[in-house]
Amino acid sequence: MEDKLFTNVKHVTLADKNNPFYLEIAGHIDDVVVEYETYGELSPAKDNAILIAHALSGDAHAAGWDLDWEKYNRPWRENKPGWWDTIIGPGKPLDTNKYFIICSNVVGSCYGTTGPSSIDPESGRPYGLDFPIVTVGDWVNLQRRLIDFLAIDKLLCVIGGSLGGQQALEWALAYPDRLHKCAILASAPRLSSQGLAFNAVGRHSIMHDPNFNDGNYYDREAPSNGLAAARMLAHITYLSEEGMQHKFGRRLRGKMQPDFDFGVEFEVESYLNYQGQRFVERFDANSYLYITKAMDYYDAAEKWGAGDIVEAVKRIECQTLVATFSSDWLYTPEQGREIAQALVKNNKRATYLSVESKFGHDAFLVETESVGRFLRAFLGSK
Amino acid sequence: MEDKLFTNVKHVTLADKNNPFYLEIAGHIDDVVVEYETYGELSPAKDNAILIAHALSGDAHAAGWDLDWEKYNRPWRENKPGWWDTIIGPGKPLDTNKYFIICSNVVGSCYGTTGPSSIDPESGRPYGLDFPIVTVGDWVNLQRRLIDFLAIDKLLCVIGGSLGGQQALEWALAYPDRLHKCAILASAPRLSSQGLAFNAVGRHSIMHDPNFNDGNYYDREAPSNGLAAARMLAHITYLSEEGMQHKFGRRLRGKMQPDFDFGVEFEVESYLNYQGQRFVERFDANSYLYITKAMDYYDAAEKWGAGDIVEAVKRIECQTLVATFSSDWLYTPEQGREIAQALVKNNKRATYLSVESKFGHDAFLVETESVGRFLRAFLGSK
Repeated sequence: MEDKLFTNVKHVTLADKNNPFYLEIAGHIDDVVVEYETYGELSPAKDNAILIAHALSGDAHAAGWDLDWEKYNRPWRENKPGWWDTIIGPGKPLDTNKYFIICSNVVGSCYGTTGPSSIDPESGRPYGLDFPIVTVGDWVNLQRRLIDFLAIDKLLCVIGGSLGGQQALEWALAYPDRLHKCAILASAPRLSSQGLAFNAVGRHSIMHDPNFNDGNYYDREAPSNGLAAARMLAHITYLSEEGMQHKFGRRLRGKMQPDFDFGVEFEVESYLNYQGQRFVERFDANSYLYITKAMDYYDAAEKWGAGDIVEAVKRIECQTLVATFSSDWLYTPEQGREIAQALVKNNKRATYLSVESKFGHDAFLVETESVGRFLRAFLGSK
Repeated sequence: MEDKLFTNVKHVTLADKNNPFYLEIAGHIDDVVVEYETYGELSPAKDNAILIAHALSGDAHAAGWDLDWEKYNRPWRENKPGWWDTIIGPGKPLDTNKYFIICSNVVGSCYGTTGPSSIDPESGRPYGLDFPIVTVGDWVNLQRRLIDFLAIDKLLCVIGGSLGGQQALEWALAYPDRLHKCAILASAPRLSSQGLAFNAVGRHSIMHDPNFNDGNYYDREAPSNGLAAARMLAHITYLSEEGMQHKFGRRLRGKMQPDFDFGVEFEVESYLNYQGQRFVERFDANSYLYITKAMDYYDAAEKWGAGDIVEAVKRIECQTLVATFSSDWLYTPEQGREIAQALVKNNKRATYLSVESKFGHDAFLVETESVGRFLRAFLGSK
């Protein structure tokens, strides 16, 4: 029996002048508002809280139907539930009848949490590129403040996919005594050279868009063409060659014969164009720069083990699940397995799941059935 | 004993008003000049001619040192021999003491053969996007005119890698009685869905560069940022994940600590930026559009076998070599093998070579030793 889940957007100020938010790399932000959502009820013993960490373009709206989409002018949410709605809800694998689920938007993003599009209290104008560089570590530190604010001592679990999986890993490393379990999906200790390369090209497109104007575009036209190009490119890395071949092949877009011009000919071109166009309606180009930078810089082995992941994970105390997807070539199975192997070498409680899928990196969002099943089992395990 | 090879650029008019060049898709070009180079001497029996077909960004300068680099203002050739100089030359696998080697620039390109940057005799201005759509079939038809002009009845071999491999395949299909042998390297009967996607994003970058101006930019600033982005992206597809990891890893560019800004941080970013910058100095953005379009449209199975490659290759009479490279993910080993398997199913003389390499698609240019060895053997075989 699954009820429809309706959600409200929540905001909390987690840093101010008297309690600045110090950043990993340099400096601090004096004023940090966090947007978050919760689903289900926190138990009296406060032992049923699960934190969900979102990926690059994600937000706090992980599940259900947003009752506030008009209030915050987010029309794309009107006819679409949260990004992991297949997994989170009453009776679903992350069962909101049992668990209290929290998801917050990361700092630097553009969905209600302070980021480059927020007003810099010093200048009275949007930060733009004056926003400081933020890291996966900062995101986790801010989530820790949120958990403190919610008066939760120890999370039952932190779960994330992709860049969210790196946040889950970072939680286990940075706050080993604050979580019982950790589920890292479609992720890696660090981005590969090829991944760095794709991010670099995406940022190149944004920063060379003539509307970019050094990040100062909030009162004029945004660098939409550059952002669309970055998104189109990134989308290729979220799918697999096999998945694209299956979904689009070389089929033409709505015609029997090509037009033989420079318009859209193939289904796959049409799909990418569509993804690019939809993205610029809902995402801020500066946030794209900051979040891909955080993605580039994160290296769990370097940060916690002087380059050695086996050394790094010695800190981890929680029970860990690592799941990878066979056709994921952004965070490959080999990279994910590295985390699990390092844990096993240290005699830590680790489970490694290799999921067969043609959906590439997107599999953690798409392979609802297997992801739901193994998350349910992992949460139920002692 | 290897002598240094010096080369001269040659031009020939292969179409004019009295003998227009009819195109596969539509229309004709009345005035076609072809730039080509030759190495070695044509034997009296005219039985030692090998045609080399170049890839996307290639040119007729396949080997040796260009004596005309100043004359044609091509400074990048001053300190660099032709693109397959490791393979072609006196004593080299394609031995110019034995063979007469021909390489010509394809129509639509920008290295001396008629293309979008050439003057349209009708308007007196550069063609730009008024240039007609050209295909792999057109390239081969024009090469056939060149071979006729050189009075060669039957080529000893046609050899090409990547898009050049598709030209070699097309030669075998379109003119089965005009070649004895055909070597198809790092190629496929058609581009995959993922390959179409990468090309689409590259063209998106060019066509959304504000300097693009519908392809009319020859008297002003060129759309260099868009072209650079397209090239950077394409370069990722020419390397392999493993190769990039090995060559660049996550190493920083000339520093011990990151700068934590939006400049170049990693080696791999620096490499891609460099490749992008060098490319815009030597390539025309419109040519990039036309050539990637030809790459998109080519489908040997569709053209010659109503979608069935086994049916298509029934036409082939020459001895065929197909070589693929293990880490090539642009034209994968599976795709190349399809050609060889189709030939074998038809009891044709085909050899398939699967070369282990970490150099990705670029392997046909980089794996000098193995490529040289198998080409030498293939040419020597009866």
